Formats: sequence, structure tokens, C-alpha cells
Amino acid sequence: MKTVKIAILGHGNVGGGLCEILQMNRQLIEERIERKIHVSYILVNNVTKERPWPTLGAKLTDSFDEIVNDNSIEIVIEALGGIEPAASYMRSALEAGKHVVTANKAALAANYPALLEKAQENNRQLLFEASVGGGIPALTAISNPLQGNEFTEVMGILNGTTNYILSKMWDEGLSYDEVLADAQAKGFAEADPTADVEGIDAANKLSILMALAFHVYVHPEKIPTEGISKITLKDIENAKKHGEKIKLIGHGYWEADENGQEILKYHVKPMKFTSEHPIFGVDNEYNAIYINGNAVGQLMFYGSGAGPLPTGSAVLGDLLSIARSL
Amino acid sequence: MKTVKIAILGHGNVGGGLCEILQMNRQLIEERIERKIHVSYILVNNVTKERPWPTLGAKLTDSFDEIVNDNSIEIVIEALGGIEPAASYMRSALEAGKHVVTANKAALAANYPALLEKAQENNRQLLFEASVGGGIPALTAISNPLQGNEFTEVMGILNGTTNYILSKMWDEGLSYDEVLADAQAKGFAEADPTADVEGIDAANKLSILMALAFHVYVHPEKIPTEGISKITLKDIENAKKHGEKIKLIGHGYWEADENGQEILKYHVKPMKFTSEHPIFGVDNEYNAIYINGNAVGQLMFYGSGAGPLPTGSAVLGDLLSIARSL
Repeated sequence: MKTVKIAILGHGNVGGGLCEILQMNRQLIEERIERKIHVSYILVNNVTKERPWPTLGAKLTDSFDEIVNDNSIEIVIEALGGIEPAASYMRSALEAGKHVVTANKAALAANYPALLEKAQENNRQLLFEASVGGGIPALTAISNPLQGNEFTEVMGILNGTTNYILSKMWDEGLSYDEVLADAQAKGFAEADPTADVEGIDAANKLSILMALAFHVYVHPEKIPTEGISKITLKDIENAKKHGEKIKLIGHGYWEADENGQEILKYHVKPMKFTSEHPIFGVDNEYNAIYINGNAVGQLMFYGSGAGPLPTGSAVLGDLLSIARSL
Repeated sequence: MKTVKIAILGHGNVGGGLCEILQMNRQLIEERIERKIHVSYILVNNVTKERPWPTLGAKLTDSFDEIVNDNSIEIVIEALGGIEPAASYMRSALEAGKHVVTANKAALAANYPALLEKAQENNRQLLFEASVGGGIPALTAISNPLQGNEFTEVMGILNGTTNYILSKMWDEGLSYDEVLADAQAKGFAEADPTADVEGIDAANKLSILMALAFHVYVHPEKIPTEGISKITLKDIENAKKHGEKIKLIGHGYWEADENGQEILKYHVKPMKFTSEHPIFGVDNEYNAIYINGNAVGQLMFYGSGAGPLPTGSAVLGDLLSIARSL
């Protein structure tokens, strides 16, 4: 059985979650893909720190150069988060002839055309299922089983933290500040929640989703973005009276202008839904991605948009798909 | 640009829907896969009958032998429905070195191990995304982006006709017989609705879903199956009083017996759901497939489970995925 050697950049929630699944499902994975996956390196800041996740016998290193210069490494998993140095590392890995899997929406959305071009130039795969919707396999669906469709619309609850906050306000009548503080205490929201609550995270994901579905790249900073920090309990209660829920939505769609020309519209903003729309039932930390194709009609994918194991599941799917092809 | 020559067996809703999409999205498809798709033959019973769907310049033939003996045909699309002669045609096509795409749950569920073995023996692909959930890309999701998971449960609303009937009874307070007659008049239910309302269609789909997710094949006739024909308006009204909906569900799951050994349980039967379960909101002719994986957690896919274009979309996805690889 061929052994595929990989390196993981980062050993936090995503890199750690991946290691956990590789350990938990090792036998099943080897049987399915008829390959062994060997984690040769894990890139960390501090090689001596105790690790809450399995390290699988990998060498812990703080040197990316050590990884990129090792010709035995065929696949690099980028699980660092943040734009830099993640984007530069992905570029270098592709240039060094390695396939790359990333979960990093910020680095990918900011550098989408350049990174895809780099992968193509080097005839290597760059896969990123985990970057949008965590464990939800929407990106692979768009580029494979749905590839015969012209997509007219993508829409989604793309951020679990904000959906959790809005759900708790609706369900329990708590204020935005109360729920945010509670979510921070429970670890569902970050100490600095700006990227989530102001819609920046959702804009990154919408940028990737549109690039894939529409073959049009819009830099996330060009997407009109409004978050949920100004939503009051009164707004929620008004919506509830009308049988509506407020959801933070990333939305991209084609609309004909007065000359009949199709124009791409996009935004991230709070929107209201009644129970007739399938997005109405997507609550708490769950995400959903809704797609409209000219053949398939409306589809919705529902699942965990974050968390070590769901995100690790999506990274692993990409990794195994590349490993099978080697 | 390479031209991939294909043959379509059948020109009803599925074969016709596929032709419609190939015509509608031709340019986009050729750009995406960098191949031309040429439909060389369409197998029909009556070559002189007028056709409601595009025939795309294909030769209409009533001879399967003509197709299987034409070495230029690389992919055969089986869109006949029914177990025979569909299963024999698929076997012959694989033996003749052609890849096969099918939408036919009855033929596939009844012959799953033999057909997959035949494909493997001949080193050809047999793809069947459209056979479960119509346009919903759940099967590809299970075998690709979710392939690192051990699945503990699959569950679904796998039949649109019965979901339509149950939804109308719940929404409009009509009896089973009234809604069935209305659905038949509108063409949503067949003149002989037995396979749908008695759960046989759902059992075929559950058999395929379990084979893919659990790697355990259960012949559909071995699945305990109860349909919806005995559900009264009183049953529905009782459920409604408790905030529940009744759905016809195909369900397969692992459960530990008294010795702690995991046993596979399965059935097709009406089940009740409250609004806390994502399946509650799946109404009318829509289908949903719910999956639980040990890494990804719970996922649900929602969309059109039938109809010429949604089913054609799934067939086309498989076709293009094979065409890319040629």
C-alpha cells in the first residue's frame, strides 16, 4: 500500500481536528483509499508546548522551510488561519510541487485568482471545501455533481457565531450584548468578535462561493457588508410577531438591469425569512448554503459550519481525494 | 477539443430532461469540461413517434445492440426505469467497455453488488447520483467530501409523491384519497401509485444509500417497508395538535445490542417530527437526505427529488465527471 506523506501547517482547532479524525478513523480511511496517510510534519509556533490534539508521530517544527524543502511531502494542509503568512506558504508549497488543501477563507478570499493560477501553473491541486460552511460539502457539490448547471443564486448562513446569537435572541428574548457575553464565556464567540459580528467572515465565504458558482471573483472588501451588532431585541421581537426570523445572510445573485443585461448583485446583511423558506429552520450554530441552478432548481445544504471535527472532516475529504489520485 | 460520444437509453422524463439541459447549457458545459458531448444514439421503443424533448441530432434507434456494438460510444446513460431490461443493458454496456451512468434506483438496488463488481472487473465507472434524491447531490457527498467519516445514520424523505400527499393533508385538511386523486390529475402521482405510496420506491433508495454509506448491501425486498396508504386525516390532525408532522422516512442506523455489538437497523415507515428536527420543514414534493457522520456530525441536503431537470442535472454531473477523465 502506497504511503502518502503530508505536512499540516497549524495544530489548532482545524489542524488538531484533522489529526483527531485521522487517528479515530485510520483503518476505515486506509481501506477506502488504499493508501496510508503519514503526517510527517506539523508546523507550530512552539515545538515544546503540550498539545491537546494527537500529533500522530509527526515531527513538530517551527520552520516552514524544512517542510517545503522536503521532497517527500506531497500534500500540504494549510490550517493556520489569517491572511499572512498562510497565503505565502500556500504559494510556496504549490511552487515546490506540492498539492495544497486549505480551510482558510480569509487567505483564500483575499488571494483567490493568484492562488488558483499558481496551482494551475504548477499543475497541482488546491482544494478548499472546508473554507465555506465548515463540514458542509457545498463547494464540491457545486464543482462536481452540479457542474452542468448555470447558477443564478447562492445564499447562505455562513457564520455560526452570528446565527447562534440571533437564535438565542429569538428563542430566549435576550439582548445582543447578553447573548454575545454568554457566547464568549462558552467559547462560541471570540474575545474580539468583530470579524464574525460585522459580517467580515461571511463576506470572505461569499467571495469564495461566488467565485466557484459564478466564475466571477469579487474581493471580499468590495462586498457591501452589514453585520448584526446593531440588531436590537426589539427588531427581533417585531420580526417574531410577523412570524419571521432575522438571519445574517451572504447573498449573490444575477439580476437583469433596465436594458435586460444580467448584473451580479451581492451583499452580506441581516435578512428576514418566514417559515416557508428552508433557511428559517436553520438555528443556533448551524450553517446552511442555499443554491439555485437552472437545471436543479433550489437546493439547500445544512450542517455544522465550524468546529474541529466538522471542519477537519472537510479538510480530510479534500486530502483523501488528492491522495487517491497520487 | 475532444468529443465524447454517448448514448442515452430512454427519452422520457430523465433522458429527455438530460437532453434539454445539454441543449440549454451546452456552451457553459463545453467551457467547463473542455470536451464536446455528442449524443450519438437515443434508444426508444418507437423511432417514428414525435418527441417532446430535444433529440440533439442523435440517431433514434430501437436496437440496444446497435449501441453496444458501436465502439465509438464511451458512455451509456441508462434512463429507462424498471429492473429489466435496464439491468441487463447496464451489464452489457460495462462488458463492452463503456462507462455507465444511471438514474434507475429499482434496477440498481436489485442488482447493486453484481453491477458494481461488473464495473470493477471491466475497469469502468458506474455512477448513479440521480438514483437517490433526484437532483440532490448526496451520494457524491458521501463518497467524496465526506469519505473520511464513519457514518452512523442515514435518513431521508426519499419520495416526493408521498411527501406531497402528506404535506397537502397537513396543510389543507384533505383526506388521503382526495389528495391522491388531485396529485394523479396533476401528474405528480402515477396512475398506479403503489410503488410510491407503499414505500417500495423509498426502500430502493434506502438500499442504495446504505450500500454507499455503510458498505453493507441490503436487498430492498429485505427492508421492512410500510407506506402511507393507511394514514388517515385523523392521524395527521392528531400529529398537528402535538406540533408534529408525519413524513415517510427511509432510515438506516447502527445500534448496539445487549452484548454491545453494533447491529444495522433499517426500515421505511411513517415517522413523526417536531419543528426541532430539520426534516420538519421539508414539504410538498421536496426530498431531504439526512446523514450523521462521526466527524462531520449531522448534515441535511434538501432539494427536488424528481422531475426532468433536477434528475437530468444529477445524471449530467456524473456524465461530465466521467467525460473529464477521458
